[in-house]
Amino acid sequence: MDFSLSPELTALQERTAAFVRDVVLPLEDRDRAPGHGPDDALRAELQDAAKDAGLFVPHLGEELGGLGLDVRGQAVVFEEAGQSLLGPLALNCAAPDEGNMAMLEKIASPEQVERFLRPLAEGRTRSAFAMTEPPPGAGSDPSMLRTVAERVDGGWSISGEKWFITGGEGAAFAIVMARTGERGATMFLVPADTPGYEVLESVDTIDRISPGGHAHMRFTDVRVADDQVLGAPDEGFRYAQVRLAPARLTHCMRWLGLARRALDVAIDRANEREAFGSRLADLGLAQRLIADSLIDVETSRAIIQKTAWILDTGNGNPTMASSIAKVHVSEAVGRIVDNAVQLCGSDGILAHPLGRMVAEVRPFRIYDGSNETHRWSIARRAAKARRSAGER
Amino acid sequence: MDFSLSPELTALQERTAAFVRDVVLPLEDRDRAPGHGPDDALRAELQDAAKDAGLFVPHLGEELGGLGLDVRGQAVVFEEAGQSLLGPLALNCAAPDEGNMAMLEKIASPEQVERFLRPLAEGRTRSAFAMTEPPPGAGSDPSMLRTVAERVDGGWSISGEKWFITGGEGAAFAIVMARTGERGATMFLVPADTPGYEVLESVDTIDRISPGGHAHMRFTDVRVADDQVLGAPDEGFRYAQVRLAPARLTHCMRWLGLARRALDVAIDRANEREAFGSRLADLGLAQRLIADSLIDVETSRAIIQKTAWILDTGNGNPTMASSIAKVHVSEAVGRIVDNAVQLCGSDGILAHPLGRMVAEVRPFRIYDGSNETHRWSIARRAAKARRSAGER
Amino acid sequence: MDFSLSPELTALQERTAAFVRDVVLPLEDRDRAPGHGPDDALRAELQDAAKDAGLFVPHLGEELGGLGLDVRGQAVVFEEAGQSLLGPLALNCAAPDEGNMAMLEKIASPEQVERFLRPLAEGRTRSAFAMTEPPPGAGSDPSMLRTVAERVDGGWSISGEKWFITGGEGAAFAIVMARTGERGATMFLVPADTPGYEVLESVDTIDRISPGGHAHMRFTDVRVADDQVLGAPDEGFRYAQVRLAPARLTHCMRWLGLARRALDVAIDRANEREAFGSRLADLGLAQRLIADSLIDVETSRAIIQKTAWILDTGNGNPTMASSIAKVHVSEAVGRIVDNAVQLCGSDGILAHPLGRMVAEVRPFRIYDGSNETHRWSIARRAAKARRSAGER
Amino acid sequence: MDFSLSPELTALQERTAAFVRDVVLPLEDRDRAPGHGPDDALRAELQDAAKDAGLFVPHLGEELGGLGLDVRGQAVVFEEAGQSLLGPLALNCAAPDEGNMAMLEKIASPEQVERFLRPLAEGRTRSAFAMTEPPPGAGSDPSMLRTVAERVDGGWSISGEKWFITGGEGAAFAIVMARTGERGATMFLVPADTPGYEVLESVDTIDRISPGGHAHMRFTDVRVADDQVLGAPDEGFRYAQVRLAPARLTHCMRWLGLARRALDVAIDRANEREAFGSRLADLGLAQRLIADSLIDVETSRAIIQKTAWILDTGNGNPTMASSIAKVHVSEAVGRIVDNAVQLCGSDGILAHPLGRMVAEVRPFRIYDGSNETHRWSIARRAAKARRSAGER
Repeated sequence: MDFSLSPELTALQERTAAFVRDVVLPLEDRDRAPGHGPDDALRAELQDAAKDAGLFVPHLGEELGGLGLDVRGQAVVFEEAGQSLLGPLALNCAAPDEGNMAMLEKIASPEQVERFLRPLAEGRTRSAFAMTEPPPGAGSDPSMLRTVAERVDGGWSISGEKWFITGGEGAAFAIVMARTGERGATMFLVPADTPGYEVLESVDTIDRISPGGHAHMRFTDVRVADDQVLGAPDEGFRYAQVRLAPARLTHCMRWLGLARRALDVAIDRANEREAFGSRLADLGLAQRLIADSLIDVETSRAIIQKTAWILDTGNGNPTMASSIAKVHVSEAVGRIVDNAVQLCGSDGILAHPLGRMVAEVRPFRIYDGSNETHRWSIARRAAKARRSAGER
Repeated sequence: MDFSLSPELTALQERTAAFVRDVVLPLEDRDRAPGHGPDDALRAELQDAAKDAGLFVPHLGEELGGLGLDVRGQAVVFEEAGQSLLGPLALNCAAPDEGNMAMLEKIASPEQVERFLRPLAEGRTRSAFAMTEPPPGAGSDPSMLRTVAERVDGGWSISGEKWFITGGEGAAFAIVMARTGERGATMFLVPADTPGYEVLESVDTIDRISPGGHAHMRFTDVRVADDQVLGAPDEGFRYAQVRLAPARLTHCMRWLGLARRALDVAIDRANEREAFGSRLADLGLAQRLIADSLIDVETSRAIIQKTAWILDTGNGNPTMASSIAKVHVSEAVGRIVDNAVQLCGSDGILAHPLGRMVAEVRPFRIYDGSNETHRWSIARRAAKARRSAGER
Repeated sequence: MDFSLSPELTALQERTAAFVRDVVLPLEDRDRAPGHGPDDALRAELQDAAKDAGLFVPHLGEELGGLGLDVRGQAVVFEEAGQSLLGPLALNCAAPDEGNMAMLEKIASPEQVERFLRPLAEGRTRSAFAMTEPPPGAGSDPSMLRTVAERVDGGWSISGEKWFITGGEGAAFAIVMARTGERGATMFLVPADTPGYEVLESVDTIDRISPGGHAHMRFTDVRVADDQVLGAPDEGFRYAQVRLAPARLTHCMRWLGLARRALDVAIDRANEREAFGSRLADLGLAQRLIADSLIDVETSRAIIQKTAWILDTGNGNPTMASSIAKVHVSEAVGRIVDNAVQLCGSDGILAHPLGRMVAEVRPFRIYDGSNETHRWSIARRAAKARRSAGER
Repeated sequence: MDFSLSPELTALQERTAAFVRDVVLPLEDRDRAPGHGPDDALRAELQDAAKDAGLFVPHLGEELGGLGLDVRGQAVVFEEAGQSLLGPLALNCAAPDEGNMAMLEKIASPEQVERFLRPLAEGRTRSAFAMTEPPPGAGSDPSMLRTVAERVDGGWSISGEKWFITGGEGAAFAIVMARTGERGATMFLVPADTPGYEVLESVDTIDRISPGGHAHMRFTDVRVADDQVLGAPDEGFRYAQVRLAPARLTHCMRWLGLARRALDVAIDRANEREAFGSRLADLGLAQRLIADSLIDVETSRAIIQKTAWILDTGNGNPTMASSIAKVHVSEAVGRIVDNAVQLCGSDGILAHPLGRMVAEVRPFRIYDGSNETHRWSIARRAAKARRSAGER
């Protein structure tokens, strides 16, 4: 058991922290437009700076311009980047592109890498992962998939609706999950300019950091060739798991960074302000909020690190582990930001920075499988494991 | 002990509920502008409708056009009105005007009533209560007041800064709390057009329902005559208590209404949606959220009713009781809205209606004395009461 | 809406408080035996003292020696009595006898009153309510009743097992719930000396205040005459509801009294002790525990009072209201006692008084329907009510 | 970063688990006496079995008969042992002896090792750590030490009172912390038969697992020689820290094992029981309790592992880390046991096994520094760290 970081990773952590502090934070004021995501100019400026700093797409292999970090390495770097909502965008490791890139790197053919992944990895495009469907379709339950792909001459025809597709508006392509016969589902790589590919509207949500927002999309007899099948046909549900467990965890990493920032903001203010003749930070009621938040930070980081090790090594149950991490960290992050708001008093409910954080982190308890769904899944596995143990 | 409502109050409750359902809710979509408060046209339309419905300024006496409700009656009507953020604005019983009117009705001279209160009661003006000051001034601790009023020929000269003054921008007048000598503080009625009266800026907060937002104000040698002193000189701190305890409770009433609405929205959706082959409302993990919310609604209403009785009758300790109600209800309301978001899943984090509610109710744990300050006050009184009991 | 107490009730409250303080508390040290309940001598001494003080069976009518309190009156007196675990035993208003007496007073025939209720009301006997059955029988779900009563010549023959029957050991009689045909269940009054009536064992639980503990009972062809049917045949489930809603609430009243005592003990200690150069009661981390507890006390009392009014007047839904009160108060009481332990530090985990309270109050979240079952019931009713509202 | 266990440690974990399951659990029924700790015969039988199994004193070096586990290895083995309250006693790694042994192994002179440590390591004696004093003496604040050691001819004279000294009754010796001059405190090794050494009484606490209970002790002119000074004079406070941080963590390990056991008991029952036509384990309200508990188990284990690594390697801040682990794990353990009780319904409040666990784990939030004290310490360090960071 060893929690030490390699000297290289420690250095990278420090460089990322410095980059966020010196380059990203000063640009935050420019991200105040009412729409979703910073504007393209700001995004390009951030990404150029990250490239210059040698921090771009750290999760990808070197042949794609990245740093080849494994999940444990990502845990270190993404947390630092996450201190600013703009940090992951700068490093091009924000959702959903980061998860899409990670999946493509594992599954895509060499031609698909060049056509879809490389432009994405270079920050020249954005992407969407089109799995969720409008009610009563597939929410947490992917078996309810209603989008269908049918065999046609020389390829497939895809029809159906997708909903709450992050980054859908403006994405260069979508990875579309569609039912293929009785047997299963298949993932398709569909460029946005394919006939029948429509972005209907972006829903108006409280989080605003993702460029392109969350789109309602429609696919009407969208024709794709066989070389646009991602991986093997009918393996879509399995690939979805490949994507979801790590994507859930990288969310945890980034949000933990933001929560740490919230706590730092709150402690700094508590150090400056006085109340009842004491430094606010020395008052017991404030100390409780600070201590509880720090405990949440440390337990979150520990469970992220452990889950990252499970994902990297295949020890244990990655799905169970990432569900546990997701529930704990999403609730811990919510508490930390809430405590920070409370510690800052009326400054805490200003729109920036804490008010914004409140709105950005709240959906994390719902996205990537609601915490209730994960609890259901955790409890079912735990109960089943005890039944199996009893039979031995 | 009797919880029954008079037939008149029951009828008024039903009329208010019908008014909100039939008149106010359909207008909510027009309140989507990014600024603070609905626009003036919408506000006027709502208030006209409330006047037509005989529901305007229900907390004021009949001679001011109101219904003469005592605090217990307000508990019933304000909760119904609060189901929509626009409801209290329609009835002209929103903060800060409602609290200002209530205080003026008790303390103002007949001339002050005509000059300041009546236009406010008729919805022709708005008002501000200028007590809080920028750090390190008076936050929760009014004794740190730095705004000063000095005797000058024929009146007073007021100088100082105020901060986070709800409704400040656009208010026809402010009730300004200023230190007067060593002895205490005095409240002054200051028209907005008085020389030296400045609204510097409105701070950008996550709540947006109050017309005029929360202003930073500056008073520079503002001259007021003796007849602009509200009540007696040097009695400002006492009057502040007169205002604060009921104002705290009317907040509780209105927010409880909004929380009930959030719960209704969530239960309705849980009744409609299916998951894992069941109605969502029948799943245990959803049932817990619903039940916990309902328990919070009922305990909140019970403690509001009890505190209203204390304020109406003078039994018990109004400050202690309203502190207890404020902490419980503000946290209960936060939990109820949060549970509703979680129950609604991705619909829950849409900007309307639940996302908006998240942002609107969060500050309630900070406004009107942060919950930490109230806990400190509650514990101090409780500890002191036991020491006194021990000495007997 | 009126929370005031009549002068008579106020006087009775004070007399009860004085009785507990002056008579009951000094006797607590004698209740340290490892078994269930204080010994008979102590119980008799306490009851004699309560009779002398005019406080005996306050919930019963005057013709049974009581004070004729309605549920609201009981809320006042039982809370005071509950400050000591011995208080309700002294007043003969402890579970299960109190609930049994209340039901018998409503339903029993004049002959049954003389034979069963009067000796119980005078403290000469104890009783048991035999409804719950061993698994997989009726726990929270009374429809799973397996005990059966069959018609025999001149009466009934009862056979079956009951489990966790509080006060079973030593009870003069049990009120036995048995299935009678397809149609329903019937309650029978069964003297302990009836052939076939067996107390098998008392289960070893962490609570120890109930004389007779919680018994496993067996009925084997127990013969009873028709005049031992309580109320009408086949109405047992309805009567059970008659008993359960108020019994649930009187539990809340008594435990609230104990929780207040725990808080008083803790505040007194926090007033005496010093830490880090301050009175412990003045430290913020202690103040939070005190304030949270006081809020729990006040919201618990308010919801008890409201539910008592519902039970007394038939307004609202008594089952729903008592479920809400039970969940809130049982969890509030648990928190208050837990906070008191924490406030008292190492004194808090001494066996007396706080350690004992920990063990005594913990089962309250399970007894009288587990809180999970009540939550399920509350949520179902709430969801159904919204569906009905939607149909109108 | 690596969470893998060596093959040796994995094998040891399995052997410990098997030992607890096959040897210790079947003996639990014999530990039902009302006093503190199992009787000497049972304790000897358990320790002999652990010796036979090669599991005795695993935390000590081989020359003392142990397995030489570092703190990370202890985390694995102590958790397994902790599944039964008797497990740590069997392995001779229960508090306070385990912490005393660990400190003596580090600090004691070779002669002291032979005289005091070896008999303890072999299970032939028990020991006590006498630091805490009766109020207003040193509770959480060691600087308030009132026990004094004064220089006398050929050694020292110790006088003072100690309180809540676990294992005090029956200990062969106590490690006594006493003030020595202005400069600091010194630890002394004091055999129980030294004149002036008195065990006054054992306080009656809700936990009963520690042989010898928690004693009130008095030292009256107790004479010790220089070779009974543990380590260097005046270094007592530093040594206390050496003992306390790991001792806090080994507590976490053992209690985590017990919490896992509680959860297993509860899941097994939820798998067996039915309610409302479903397996209890499949009901959402039960699933939440199970999932929350499992999340608590996993985050607790992760933070224990990380803190163990910090203690082993000197990375990070051991005091801060162990405070964080102690608060999180003690509260998580409390929640897990509480959830297990609730899941088991009326079985949950039986005295064995869950009722006993409730009583045993509750003090953990108070022992080893109350969680409030740790929160204070955590918040102070965090606030100071930000101030230092700001100055850079």
